[in-house]
Amino acid sequence: MNKYYSKEDRQLLAVDCIIFGFDAGKIKLLIVKRNFEPELGGWSLAGGFVRKDEGIDECASRVLHELTGLKIIYLEQLLTYGSVDRDPGARVVSVAYYALLNVKDHNLDLNRNNEACWCPLEEMPELVFDHGAMVAKALKRLKRKAKIGPIGFELLPDRFTLPQLQSLYECIYQKNLDKRNFRKKILSMELLEKLTEKDKSSSKKGAYYYCFNRKKYDQLAAEGFYFNLEV
Amino acid sequence: MNKYYSKEDRQLLAVDCIIFGFDAGKIKLLIVKRNFEPELGGWSLAGGFVRKDEGIDECASRVLHELTGLKIIYLEQLLTYGSVDRDPGARVVSVAYYALLNVKDHNLDLNRNNEACWCPLEEMPELVFDHGAMVAKALKRLKRKAKIGPIGFELLPDRFTLPQLQSLYECIYQKNLDKRNFRKKILSMELLEKLTEKDKSSSKKGAYYYCFNRKKYDQLAAEGFYFNLEV
Repeated sequence: MNKYYSKEDRQLLAVDCIIFGFDAGKIKLLIVKRNFEPELGGWSLAGGFVRKDEGIDECASRVLHELTGLKIIYLEQLLTYGSVDRDPGARVVSVAYYALLNVKDHNLDLNRNNEACWCPLEEMPELVFDHGAMVAKALKRLKRKAKIGPIGFELLPDRFTLPQLQSLYECIYQKNLDKRNFRKKILSMELLEKLTEKDKSSSKKGAYYYCFNRKKYDQLAAEGFYFNLEV
Repeated sequence: MNKYYSKEDRQLLAVDCIIFGFDAGKIKLLIVKRNFEPELGGWSLAGGFVRKDEGIDECASRVLHELTGLKIIYLEQLLTYGSVDRDPGARVVSVAYYALLNVKDHNLDLNRNNEACWCPLEEMPELVFDHGAMVAKALKRLKRKAKIGPIGFELLPDRFTLPQLQSLYECIYQKNLDKRNFRKKILSMELLEKLTEKDKSSSKKGAYYYCFNRKKYDQLAAEGFYFNLEV
């Protein structure tokens, strides 16, 4: 290794992860308190430096695993941030990733780490460096991707109700959706399976649980089917 | 600088540019012959190492300028490639950018550099490292973006004919388009200005030249107008 290019500059390379969750009708962001300088005590995305023997995707997975205990998470590269002075500590180029996970299932792991918290987007404190811009970019990406693929389901438990699903998409699209239209659209794709059990926590009548049939979706997608939740 | 994070690994960081042009009814890619090891003599994207005192966007602009002599080019970050062994010469993380430019206007600058050539996509030789994957990704992005924004015009001269425009979009979408439908769609947005002169090179009757009214587009876009060339 390193036998060529020996005269070129070497840089610090990091990943930063925008980790979205959905809980109590709100999209939340997993943020951590920095325990090192610069900006000690500031709120930050979960991040880490890329080691010389690890790929950037692997590094993002490692950062997520170290924080949440999870290994398989929806994780996608977003954009790389590389202006010279973005981090006052040193010249660091950062590859931003965004991840989607279901908050409910993973509360326990997080509780072990007091420096991390799930923060609703509307209450987000100012983040260090350009992390605020990364979050804005990730939200835009999430909005676009949720229309054309079933990534919203990553944010929900395996069983969910239609009101929950609608509330999630209302958060992602940042607008109220018409109940009848939304249900028609989502059900017409025939990707949801109605379960026999009901969630009675929100109303006396209750709402049936559904689950997303990923196997069917993968099969249909391979045959040219397009997911479409343009509302 | 560099007072924190001193124990972290430092990496070589590069940019690689996928430079698209449109000429003689074909989308072409600007590729260069590598004049250093490893893969000396192999065909490669235009690239360069990020210097410690330059931002990654600046670095991409510099690489483009050094090769084409152009300073203002449509340039957008695509994706960062960072598996450990992507470059046999050393561990190099590369930020891929794609650029769009009009081949006709810039032949002269390129002729000075014998190591570079415009290659039609269908005749593209095998490229070094993961550069082929970068091109595939850029084509996908171009296809998506051309539907929702006027980026196709970056690839055309200031004055163009409707047959030229259709031929460009046929290349981008990789399918034949219905002439009447295409014209209706593009003209109904009222973003093209018909000029009085005709191009008589392709037929006796000739085809009127048009130009794209960017000022009007910017104004409309600011007011919430969506460009849509879904065909």
